[in-house]
Amino acid sequence: MAIIVQKFGGTSVADIDRIGAVADRVRASVEAGDRVAVVVSAMAGVTNQLAAWAAQAARDMDPCEYDAVVSAGEQVTTGLLTLCLQDRGIAARSWLGWQLPIRTDRVHGRARISGIDVDALGKGLEAGQVQVVAGFQGVTDDRRVATLGRGGSDITAVALAAALRAERCDIYTDVDGVYTSDPRIVAKARKLDKITYEEMLEMASLGAKVLHTRSVELAMKHNVRLQVLSSFNDLPGTLVVDEDEIVEQELVSGITYSRDEAKVTLTRVPDRPGVAAAIFGPLSDAEINVDMIVQNVAADGQSTDLTFTVARSELKDALKVLEGKKSLLGYDQLLPDPDVVKVSVIGVGMRSHAGVAKTMFETMAAKGINIQVISTSEIKISVLIAEEYTELALRALHSAYGLDAG
Amino acid sequence: MAIIVQKFGGTSVADIDRIGAVADRVRASVEAGDRVAVVVSAMAGVTNQLAAWAAQAARDMDPCEYDAVVSAGEQVTTGLLTLCLQDRGIAARSWLGWQLPIRTDRVHGRARISGIDVDALGKGLEAGQVQVVAGFQGVTDDRRVATLGRGGSDITAVALAAALRAERCDIYTDVDGVYTSDPRIVAKARKLDKITYEEMLEMASLGAKVLHTRSVELAMKHNVRLQVLSSFNDLPGTLVVDEDEIVEQELVSGITYSRDEAKVTLTRVPDRPGVAAAIFGPLSDAEINVDMIVQNVAADGQSTDLTFTVARSELKDALKVLEGKKSLLGYDQLLPDPDVVKVSVIGVGMRSHAGVAKTMFETMAAKGINIQVISTSEIKISVLIAEEYTELALRALHSAYGLDAG
Repeated sequence: MAIIVQKFGGTSVADIDRIGAVADRVRASVEAGDRVAVVVSAMAGVTNQLAAWAAQAARDMDPCEYDAVVSAGEQVTTGLLTLCLQDRGIAARSWLGWQLPIRTDRVHGRARISGIDVDALGKGLEAGQVQVVAGFQGVTDDRRVATLGRGGSDITAVALAAALRAERCDIYTDVDGVYTSDPRIVAKARKLDKITYEEMLEMASLGAKVLHTRSVELAMKHNVRLQVLSSFNDLPGTLVVDEDEIVEQELVSGITYSRDEAKVTLTRVPDRPGVAAAIFGPLSDAEINVDMIVQNVAADGQSTDLTFTVARSELKDALKVLEGKKSLLGYDQLLPDPDVVKVSVIGVGMRSHAGVAKTMFETMAAKGINIQVISTSEIKISVLIAEEYTELALRALHSAYGLDAG
Repeated sequence: MAIIVQKFGGTSVADIDRIGAVADRVRASVEAGDRVAVVVSAMAGVTNQLAAWAAQAARDMDPCEYDAVVSAGEQVTTGLLTLCLQDRGIAARSWLGWQLPIRTDRVHGRARISGIDVDALGKGLEAGQVQVVAGFQGVTDDRRVATLGRGGSDITAVALAAALRAERCDIYTDVDGVYTSDPRIVAKARKLDKITYEEMLEMASLGAKVLHTRSVELAMKHNVRLQVLSSFNDLPGTLVVDEDEIVEQELVSGITYSRDEAKVTLTRVPDRPGVAAAIFGPLSDAEINVDMIVQNVAADGQSTDLTFTVARSELKDALKVLEGKKSLLGYDQLLPDPDVVKVSVIGVGMRSHAGVAKTMFETMAAKGINIQVISTSEIKISVLIAEEYTELALRALHSAYGLDAG
C-alpha cells in the first residue's frame, strides 16, 4: 500500500464544516487503500490574528516568542481534524512539531528543517492509523518552537513525504492545479497535467502563487512527486515531477506576470570600472534585492544609462539610498517608474529549441508593446513592459505559443 | 531575593491591553526586587471557543486530542505576555508544559501533576529573567499534552511555587480577595486578611468560587502561602496560610451558600439492614454524588423516610435511577425538591468553641426559616433551607457571628 502525504491549507480548514470535508476526503483515500499522513495549516485568518496580537504586544519582537504564539494555530487544526476523523470511524492521531520531532535550526520565523524522526509515525501508518501533523512548525535543539515562514506547511508536507519515501505529496489548495497562465486574465488558460520541478520553480518565483519556491526546491532535491489540486472538487490536479516523467514536453509551459516590480534608471553614469559595484553594493547593504539589470554601451565613450528593477515595495528605500550617493556615483538623473510589469515565458523545452525568444519579441512588436528590459535564463525569458499592457501581452503570448484551450 | 509565583486568569489577560497591564504589574514586582515566575491562563473565552470546536468535531471525544486543541490557548497568552514584558525592557522567556517539562499522569482533561523540572527555570530566575509558564497544561510520559481540568492554571501556579520553594503564590483574579460572605448579597461582607487552608478548602467546596479545591489542597500539602488578589487594583488580597500563621483566629471566617443543590425524599422505606446500600449503590454506579443524607428513626419500627441531596444538574438522573428500582427498594413515594439552598458557616475556631451550632439554629428560628437537613464537620455547619430564604439567612448569620463590617 502506498504512503500518501496530503496537505490542506488555511482556506481548506477555515471552519469545522470544512475540516469535516477534509476528513471525508482523507477517509476516501484510506478506504481506497492508501496510508495517509496529513499536514494542516491554521484555520484561515488565525495566523494573521495571532501575528497581529504579537505585533501589538511588542515593537521589536523576539522571534522565539513570536513563534510560540503563531504556532498555536496549527496545533488547533491538527487536533480538530484528528477528532473529525475519529468521529468518522477512522483511526487517527495528531503530532505537533516537537512531538515527532521535526528538528529545525534556530532561525526563528523562517527556520529550515534539519530532520524529521518518522519512526513512530511510520509505525502508526503501518497499523492503518492516519497521522495528522501540524504544518509550519518544528523544534530547535534547545527545545523552542520554530516556524518555517511563508509556505511553511507546504515545506512540512514535502519534508515529511521525503522522510517517509511517500508515493506522492498532494497539496490541496483553493485552486485546482497549475495553469498555463492566470485564468482571471487569460480566459483560455489550461490546467497543466504535469510540469517539471524547474518550470514550477520559475513559475513560483515569477509570480504564480500556487506553491512557494522553498517547497518546490525541497521536492526537487528529494525527488518528491508533488500534486497541486483543489480541496473543493474531485478533479485531478497538476503533477510536479522530474523531467524524465514527462514524455511529450511542450515548448512553453506557462506565461506568468509579476506586478511587484519597479524600474529605476540612472542617466549619464560615468562609464568606468567599479561603477556597478558602487551602485549595487549600497543597495545590497540595505537588503534591497535587485532583479533585472541593463547597462548600455557608452555611446560617447564616457557615460551610459543604467536601468534595474526592484520590488515595488522597496522602491522608496532604493531611491533614498541612491540619492544619498549622488555625488559619489556622479549620475545625472534618477528616474523611478513603478508602473511596470514583468512578463515571463517559461518552458524546459527552450533548452533544445531556438525561436522561443523570437516569438516573444515578434508578438510584443505586433501588439505595439515596447520592451524595456529583457532577462533570460536557460528555461525562461522575462521582459519588463508598461503595466497597462499586462493583459494584452499575456493573452497574445498565450496564443502565440499555442497554449490556448481547445 | 524572594521568588514569587504570580498567576493571572482569563479575564486578566482578555486582550492585549490587559496583558500589557499584567506586564506592568510584573515589572513592578521585578523592580521591587522579586524574582518572578508568572503562570497565565488563556484569554477569556478562548478555551470555551476551542472546546466548542472540539465538541462540534466529534461526538465521542478522544481526550488526548481534546487536550491538544484546548491547550493552544495558554500557549498564545504565554508568548504574548513574554513579548509585552520584553517590550517594557524586562528580560523574559516563555515555557510550555512540555518544555519544562511539567509531568502529568495520562488522565487527559483532568490530569494530575507528578513533577515539575524547575532547574532551567530556576537558573533563569537567578539571572533576573522573568519566567512565563503556560498554565493548565503538562505532558505525559508518552509525550502527549495533558490538561489539568477546572482550576488548572491555579494548580500549575501552586505546583510551581512548591517546586521553586517560592515565598508566595499570588493568584490574581477579578475579585480582590476572599470575603466573609458573597458581597453581592451581604453588603456588610468584609475581605479577610488571612484564612486557613482548611477554611479555604471548605469555602471552595461549599460555593465560594474564588479558588478551586484542588489548588488549595495542593497548597496545603506543600505549605505554599497563597494570596488571592485583584489584577484590577493595587489592594492587598487575602492570604491563605497555615493555622499557625494566624494569631487571632476568629470563631467563624465565612458564610457560604450553594444553590447547586436538590433534595430527594423517599417515603416509607423499609427499615432493614442494607437498605441504604441498595439506594446509594446504584446512584454511585451512575456517578451521581450524594451530599447530605438524613435517615429518621422508624417511628413504627418498620419503615422510615430517607432524605438526601444531589447537585441540581444531576437530579433528573438520580430520579430515573431510583424510579427504576422502585419495586426493589420498596419505598412509597419519591419526592424531588430542586428549590433548596445549602448555607454553611465555616471556621477553624469551632474546634475549640462550642455554641457555634446553637447560634446558627437560633438565628434561623428567629427568622422563621425551617431547617430541612443539617450536616457538620469539624470546622463547618451546613443547613439545607428553602431557596427563597437564601439572602435573609446569609445576612442574619453574618450579623449573628459578628462578621459585619464596622
